[in-house]
Amino acid sequence: MTIKTNPGNFFEDFQLGQEIVHAVPRTVTAGDVALYIGLTGSRFALHASDAFAQAIGYGKAPVDDILVFHIVFGRTVADISLNAIANLGYAQCKFGAPVYAGDTLSTRSTVIGLKENSNRETGIVYVRSVGRNQRDEVVLDYVRWVMVRKREQARPAPDALVPELAAAVAPADFYLPAGLQLEHYDRALAGSPHGWEDYQKGERIDHVDGMTLEESDHMTATRLYQNNAKVHFNQHAESKGRFGKRLIYGGHIISLARAASFNGLANALRVLAINGGRHVNPSFAGDTIYAWSEVVDVIELPGRADLGALRLRTIAAKDHPCADFPGPDAAGKYPAEVVLDLDYTILLPRRLA
Amino acid sequence: MTIKTNPGNFFEDFQLGQEIVHAVPRTVTAGDVALYIGLTGSRFALHASDAFAQAIGYGKAPVDDILVFHIVFGRTVADISLNAIANLGYAQCKFGAPVYAGDTLSTRSTVIGLKENSNRETGIVYVRSVGRNQRDEVVLDYVRWVMVRKREQARPAPDALVPELAAAVAPADFYLPAGLQLEHYDRALAGSPHGWEDYQKGERIDHVDGMTLEESDHMTATRLYQNNAKVHFNQHAESKGRFGKRLIYGGHIISLARAASFNGLANALRVLAINGGRHVNPSFAGDTIYAWSEVVDVIELPGRADLGALRLRTIAAKDHPCADFPGPDAAGKYPAEVVLDLDYTILLPRRLA
Amino acid sequence: MTIKTNPGNFFEDFQLGQEIVHAVPRTVTAGDVALYIGLTGSRFALHASDAFAQAIGYGKAPVDDILVFHIVFGRTVADISLNAIANLGYAQCKFGAPVYAGDTLSTRSTVIGLKENSNRETGIVYVRSVGRNQRDEVVLDYVRWVMVRKREQARPAPDALVPELAAAVAPADFYLPAGLQLEHYDRALAGSPHGWEDYQKGERIDHVDGMTLEESDHMTATRLYQNNAKVHFNQHAESKGRFGKRLIYGGHIISLARAASFNGLANALRVLAINGGRHVNPSFAGDTIYAWSEVVDVIELPGRADLGALRLRTIAAKDHPCADFPGPDAAGKYPAEVVLDLDYTILLPRRLA
Repeated sequence: MTIKTNPGNFFEDFQLGQEIVHAVPRTVTAGDVALYIGLTGSRFALHASDAFAQAIGYGKAPVDDILVFHIVFGRTVADISLNAIANLGYAQCKFGAPVYAGDTLSTRSTVIGLKENSNRETGIVYVRSVGRNQRDEVVLDYVRWVMVRKREQARPAPDALVPELAAAVAPADFYLPAGLQLEHYDRALAGSPHGWEDYQKGERIDHVDGMTLEESDHMTATRLYQNNAKVHFNQHAESKGRFGKRLIYGGHIISLARAASFNGLANALRVLAINGGRHVNPSFAGDTIYAWSEVVDVIELPGRADLGALRLRTIAAKDHPCADFPGPDAAGKYPAEVVLDLDYTILLPRRLA
Repeated sequence: MTIKTNPGNFFEDFQLGQEIVHAVPRTVTAGDVALYIGLTGSRFALHASDAFAQAIGYGKAPVDDILVFHIVFGRTVADISLNAIANLGYAQCKFGAPVYAGDTLSTRSTVIGLKENSNRETGIVYVRSVGRNQRDEVVLDYVRWVMVRKREQARPAPDALVPELAAAVAPADFYLPAGLQLEHYDRALAGSPHGWEDYQKGERIDHVDGMTLEESDHMTATRLYQNNAKVHFNQHAESKGRFGKRLIYGGHIISLARAASFNGLANALRVLAINGGRHVNPSFAGDTIYAWSEVVDVIELPGRADLGALRLRTIAAKDHPCADFPGPDAAGKYPAEVVLDLDYTILLPRRLA
Repeated sequence: MTIKTNPGNFFEDFQLGQEIVHAVPRTVTAGDVALYIGLTGSRFALHASDAFAQAIGYGKAPVDDILVFHIVFGRTVADISLNAIANLGYAQCKFGAPVYAGDTLSTRSTVIGLKENSNRETGIVYVRSVGRNQRDEVVLDYVRWVMVRKREQARPAPDALVPELAAAVAPADFYLPAGLQLEHYDRALAGSPHGWEDYQKGERIDHVDGMTLEESDHMTATRLYQNNAKVHFNQHAESKGRFGKRLIYGGHIISLARAASFNGLANALRVLAINGGRHVNPSFAGDTIYAWSEVVDVIELPGRADLGALRLRTIAAKDHPCADFPGPDAAGKYPAEVVLDLDYTILLPRRLA
């Protein structure tokens, strides 16, 4: 009689080069899209409106890239991070083929780095995860690293290998949806007159609006993604845990920051890349999430007079409006109110030549 | 470098005759319909069942009219009521072409009235908003007026113009869906034997059932409609505000009153019109909403032996069951428990001649 | 002027052999499926993925059987259990034709047993309810019995008739979806290597994961099913009631136990039958639900080398992890932490010969 439940993987269970087929392929539906709007308040017209999407060359509204991220990521949790102590970071996250309601997403990962910690009780696992649709097209390709418990402290660890990770996804790796035609792009319907040319390097935007977190909302979002990390759902266990309460899935904070960014970045057509991201403090039900962004780079796209990219740094803070642009101090230390520091790149329309 | 966020419009920003194209066209989907049922408990068979709808001549189940109202209304908030102090009323609200999952709704408004208040700090803005589907058919046409802050008290105001508004939508303006065939209308499946002939002018119906409001529910409903009025979402700010807590979108109370009205008005086929409506007291999470209705008028529809209309006054109350039919006193003053006074007209089947 | 609201049926209103057509046929949609995943965290690949379903012979992903149960059951509440004091049990619950998004479900019931209680204030009503799709195919057929108030104690009761109910649904009555082809069944994608042969009679599985109940979640689930039993929704009334708080729909606990059972039973292809079930203690918001299962029987299916069945007993407990397999004592008395004792049968893939 074998153990039927999944104990998750421990540090020793991972091997360099190991390939993992994650379970539960997931068909994304109009139901997921509605629930995502209901849980985040996202207002980007491209993802809310078939008619708007069709006017610029899509067959119908593509699914919000961040929702795609959550679904692809959700597949990996049972294998990668069930015994994780901390989700340390993301890098090299490239969004690929647009996802539409009806597409089925599945995820495979490769272990690309391993490093035992000096306490020998934990180690860091680096995985590259690739999400594909039912036609085997890549929809998302990213690296994350997590700190995972060892099963036995005494067990010898493999030689450390820390992968080299790019600081940012290169413009040559941006995936521009084929057939995108900006002639009939309507900024009034999108919600802002500001296109790519209107943003300047170093510009800071307070996204103004705050959203208060509820247990039901973050749990429903996280369950929707079939992310089964225990810390988000079980108050009985967490009441005796480190925080005494359920920890909110960091990805939900990304969703809220992205939804808030509509106010200032309404013409963002898609997330091209997540260059890096860190959940620098935990969030809990009752916290109100605010966000601001800095334009880190204004990127011209070779051969495209109609589109440009912005590299952004978006910081989310709890119970702290972002008019004063909170962030790390000179030593890189984050104040307690900052919960997210996200480096990502978006696509915007240009004024047509 | 221009300000990228939307500060909303102040009283001075509105001009008589001004036309406003509201952002974010919205495709209504089966996901929205499911979430609407999940958040309100609505049981009207026509909106819940394709088979029921097809039996009376629809291609599939039309979307609940009140959900259509919320989505069309939601578009207007960023332009009309972001700086509103109070949503004062609705009038002349006519429902048009049925909306089906897959339709994309967008809204345009015209400023039809302006009146500065005597304190010179605020003014009243009257707008007529028209929601249309992707074929440019009108799905909703209504007037609302809101009290909006002035940017500067000293700024001179335009001449006051208060539009004349009809007390009720006239039967000639009712939109009856083409092809509606009542021969196979099944009252047992609809949930009540009572059709149009069974209701009498002056009749009062206690809808009996109470529904307790949760923060997560009203926020999810309001986010689903992409209504971004700040007071509904931000506990951090509202804790220092007038009520110390988040205010519930008045439209959510309309949804709950309408869902409760199934118990007594199960054969309501559609909302033909909202003649007027006022949110007379605020609602908060934790309140339990009850409702009752009075039949204000029994309206024959010219040339239709199969259909009739009822003009109703529906009152919703919090933490107060409605067996005693709470409402305004002789002086028109509402008791603290009454939160909604809605005057609307519904379509019902008649006993076929 | 007749009373327009539904007072529900009392014990005297039921007659042996009576047939009841329940109101509000319900089209199940992709929205319901998404919300069901969002509210329960269910991860069964067959219900989450069109591609997975197609690989084994379905046209697209069938709807989770327990969601079908809730929707069929929800139709019956207004007629059967609005005045119920207790939902006493289920039996002979057979799942039939698979349900797909787009199908419309309706329910009819027959009264098959009546028995007045000795206090003459209440009686037990046994009904057999049959859910059908729009093609009149049976999707669910089950018996439940409820304790219902009498309208008047003095009213004479009919002769008692308690139906004979089978202890379990017989294998001959299992409905195996036509066209099911297991050649391409992928256990890695399903989430577990364990098929039918790997389970042994008497084996116990702790499903490990706990899920904390929120008011918003259980109310949204129950409203989604259009189950309008008052005790789940009205804190104003329940604050003066037996528990002082809203009682959670027992079916939501079944959903959570079934979702948790993925961890240990990921290859369950469908629920073939619910042989019996009892909600042995109430659940409330704030409780954390855990579950464990015992394999009661390992059932070979005649003529099928590719499929087998397991009869399970699944017990759910609140605020009590199930590593110690909590259950009734020798006298059959349940400890306060046990909330559900469910006897049901699932279909699993076999290792292909």
